[in-house]
Amino acid sequence: MNWTRHHILGLADWTTEEYDILMQTASSFREVLSRRTKKVPALQGQVVTNMFFEPSTRTRSSFELAAKRLSADILNFSPGSSSLTKGETILDTAKTYLAMGTDIIVVRHKQAGVPQMIAAEMDFLKTGVCVLNGGDGQHEHPSQGLLDLFTLCSSLDPDNPRIELLKGKKIAIVGDILHSRVARSNIWSLTKAGAQVYLAGPPTLVPQFFLHMVTELENDQLCLNWDIEPALIEADFVITLRLQQERMTDHLLPSLREYHQCYGITRDRLKLCKSQVKVLHPGPVNRGVEISSDLMEDQEFSLIQQQVTNGIAVRMALLYLIGTLNS
Amino acid sequence: MNWTRHHILGLADWTTEEYDILMQTASSFREVLSRRTKKVPALQGQVVTNMFFEPSTRTRSSFELAAKRLSADILNFSPGSSSLTKGETILDTAKTYLAMGTDIIVVRHKQAGVPQMIAAEMDFLKTGVCVLNGGDGQHEHPSQGLLDLFTLCSSLDPDNPRIELLKGKKIAIVGDILHSRVARSNIWSLTKAGAQVYLAGPPTLVPQFFLHMVTELENDQLCLNWDIEPALIEADFVITLRLQQERMTDHLLPSLREYHQCYGITRDRLKLCKSQVKVLHPGPVNRGVEISSDLMEDQEFSLIQQQVTNGIAVRMALLYLIGTLNS
Amino acid sequence: MNWTRHHILGLADWTTEEYDILMQTASSFREVLSRRTKKVPALQGQVVTNMFFEPSTRTRSSFELAAKRLSADILNFSPGSSSLTKGETILDTAKTYLAMGTDIIVVRHKQAGVPQMIAAEMDFLKTGVCVLNGGDGQHEHPSQGLLDLFTLCSSLDPDNPRIELLKGKKIAIVGDILHSRVARSNIWSLTKAGAQVYLAGPPTLVPQFFLHMVTELENDQLCLNWDIEPALIEADFVITLRLQQERMTDHLLPSLREYHQCYGITRDRLKLCKSQVKVLHPGPVNRGVEISSDLMEDQEFSLIQQQVTNGIAVRMALLYLIGTLNS
Repeated sequence: MNWTRHHILGLADWTTEEYDILMQTASSFREVLSRRTKKVPALQGQVVTNMFFEPSTRTRSSFELAAKRLSADILNFSPGSSSLTKGETILDTAKTYLAMGTDIIVVRHKQAGVPQMIAAEMDFLKTGVCVLNGGDGQHEHPSQGLLDLFTLCSSLDPDNPRIELLKGKKIAIVGDILHSRVARSNIWSLTKAGAQVYLAGPPTLVPQFFLHMVTELENDQLCLNWDIEPALIEADFVITLRLQQERMTDHLLPSLREYHQCYGITRDRLKLCKSQVKVLHPGPVNRGVEISSDLMEDQEFSLIQQQVTNGIAVRMALLYLIGTLNS
Repeated sequence: MNWTRHHILGLADWTTEEYDILMQTASSFREVLSRRTKKVPALQGQVVTNMFFEPSTRTRSSFELAAKRLSADILNFSPGSSSLTKGETILDTAKTYLAMGTDIIVVRHKQAGVPQMIAAEMDFLKTGVCVLNGGDGQHEHPSQGLLDLFTLCSSLDPDNPRIELLKGKKIAIVGDILHSRVARSNIWSLTKAGAQVYLAGPPTLVPQFFLHMVTELENDQLCLNWDIEPALIEADFVITLRLQQERMTDHLLPSLREYHQCYGITRDRLKLCKSQVKVLHPGPVNRGVEISSDLMEDQEFSLIQQQVTNGIAVRMALLYLIGTLNS
Repeated sequence: MNWTRHHILGLADWTTEEYDILMQTASSFREVLSRRTKKVPALQGQVVTNMFFEPSTRTRSSFELAAKRLSADILNFSPGSSSLTKGETILDTAKTYLAMGTDIIVVRHKQAGVPQMIAAEMDFLKTGVCVLNGGDGQHEHPSQGLLDLFTLCSSLDPDNPRIELLKGKKIAIVGDILHSRVARSNIWSLTKAGAQVYLAGPPTLVPQFFLHMVTELENDQLCLNWDIEPALIEADFVITLRLQQERMTDHLLPSLREYHQCYGITRDRLKLCKSQVKVLHPGPVNRGVEISSDLMEDQEFSLIQQQVTNGIAVRMALLYLIGTLNS
């Protein structure tokens, strides 16, 4: 089993083998992170450039710390003080960082396809630079999808998280699926794992066409409901999505309070699920909207903190796998 | 004599022993800083997160450099591009950095009590994370109070700065005491040291209730005057405080020029003090307002540059003491 | 041949020996950068502070990466969250970083002369701190001038770039020379090298007084034309300058389209030059304005990417030469 993927642009075409290699690698980095000295010299002297055209605390910090723990040097590109306002194209900015000696570019952009565009140019120029999608528009957020997968599998077998563990499990994805790149990445990885994925949320945010997103599915592997109950009944896991408050002003929702009443994850609603159900959320959380405040703290149900912790290990694994591919 | 304090939230309850351990440790780091290679591996692999909700150049840079010289990894949380605007609570943001593997959080917030709140949560969750108050509202700024103390004691005995040196010394604190967290931290440490502390400034900025801030004081250990002369007469040290220009628009001051005329530290005014008097200022300085421009440069009187230098050593000592407490 | 220069403020008074030492040093660092582990411990424990009062992605990132590859610690001063808005003077801000233990300050400011002012103060205070001009107003941008020189000489002899290679070469500098600190640094170094320098651009942006900028020139070593053709005929190199779009609103130009028609570098225009002509641009580029888009990609003609790469090596050389001067 060898790693061959150069860019991490989305999960749509990942194989089960790739998921397993990634999770094995992340698992060994999680062990490193439990030591007092949490650093390894794997990427010493390599340069990771964070090109975050969209503001981000959580994802940027996570990638930054992952890169530091692999001993890489980091350049942070900040759009505020950037050349983009001076008329430079995105590709020219990327090529400037390439010319400075960047080895890996992590790209976040509100426009879907920007990481792909940069990756294509890097390949066309035969640069050897790897591109990692840190979230592009409403398309994909592969590192979040992978840390969710790793967190799900780790909760089933902490010592040996692997994709087969999810076969036949029922996983509900609740909320604003339409605008969520996280949901899309989740759908790719979870259906590939053989899980039963139930999408639920208001009709304005969960359009029917999601049922046709993945072809070659087994019967009923991907379901969609505008009521939350069918999704929760006997569910093994619930992934609730962040509700961006802009959706209110877009007239897609009547009110946050009503959203919570219909789709908020509460202790009562969890009684519909399997007794050992676990809840995930990509963060940042609007307490009392997507999830009730007390539930979020409850370590019996909530995997939210573990998602953040696993995010470092998964991003170290991604940077390590692509950064040492050709060496 | 052993260090036992886990969080650095304020100086109100510090013992003389703690002040002395801190100053001994800072003193040894000051020696490290005079070497060509100014780094020690004490916090290698540990993560220090700067959560500065209030903008800051000076304090943030000082903590950042102190952490780098202890070989820690640093994450900078910047409120501009943060999740807070996305509806996440401060505690949830702190817990996100906790979950990423943060060992020490340095917090600055315009609201008094935020560092305490985060520290309480970290303890409640049994995380082992240390919290360092980098300035909270008008409450305390302990690292500034400690670097002031260290600078005062070092000016009396550079080789062995210790708190007993200040016993019976007269120290004037001049200016906007009402809004100053630095003044409050100074009052705690200097009265504990047995110094005589004279507060002086305009009535709108030096209210009477400061006389009752510290209980169990010896006679006349804390005095308050709206004229500057009684504070300066035979003073050993003058700490002049930054005047925030917003105070003008708050109608607390007639004009900056008049403030300088009444409370500005000038060569003439210093003639009232002991001949070897020294002047401190926490910076940034409004030249010609709190202090006359030429006096600020005069190394015979000004300890302002030494405060900044000592700030690195004191912050290294703080990070070192709390960061190695449990190891 | 020994290095003696302490501050890098401008190229006006550089000797040919200095240019050659710099290019030799940069050449050896370029070799380091081609290795897998691109770091050297030369400035370990030293602190480089980037004081960029003007926003900058490219130059700041380049200095930051250069400093990291020399193992220095870096402090980034950002004007947005700075003490300057609090009434502190630039010199006091610089002295604060000095007091923190800064060894080298890189300064960019929209006002010409700021780096000189800081350097003079650092010398007056006998601090030993080195100042590096990262671009000051319309005065000089020496690190850019040096990387251009290094790129020109390297294109003539990659293994041994030296200033004598440019003797008698014809070099056109095209565009907004009036507002360009890069052009001024180029003029100093290229005329010193003995090249023939032709300035070309619109009359509003290329005033006659540039002909008198350098005294003691050989006949016709510096020429000026408002038509581009005389500059391009038989040219060995073309340096085209960035056109800031603000110039349009200043009524200095009719339109970007017309500028491109008159002064844009195109494949057709290059036919006037020597066949092996190379094109440089300091970036960021307005594609289709200063240079046609396809030409920029053409590695046969364009040295633009090499300029960025060489920028790291040249800045490493500058930091190394001044940072190890007294050790």
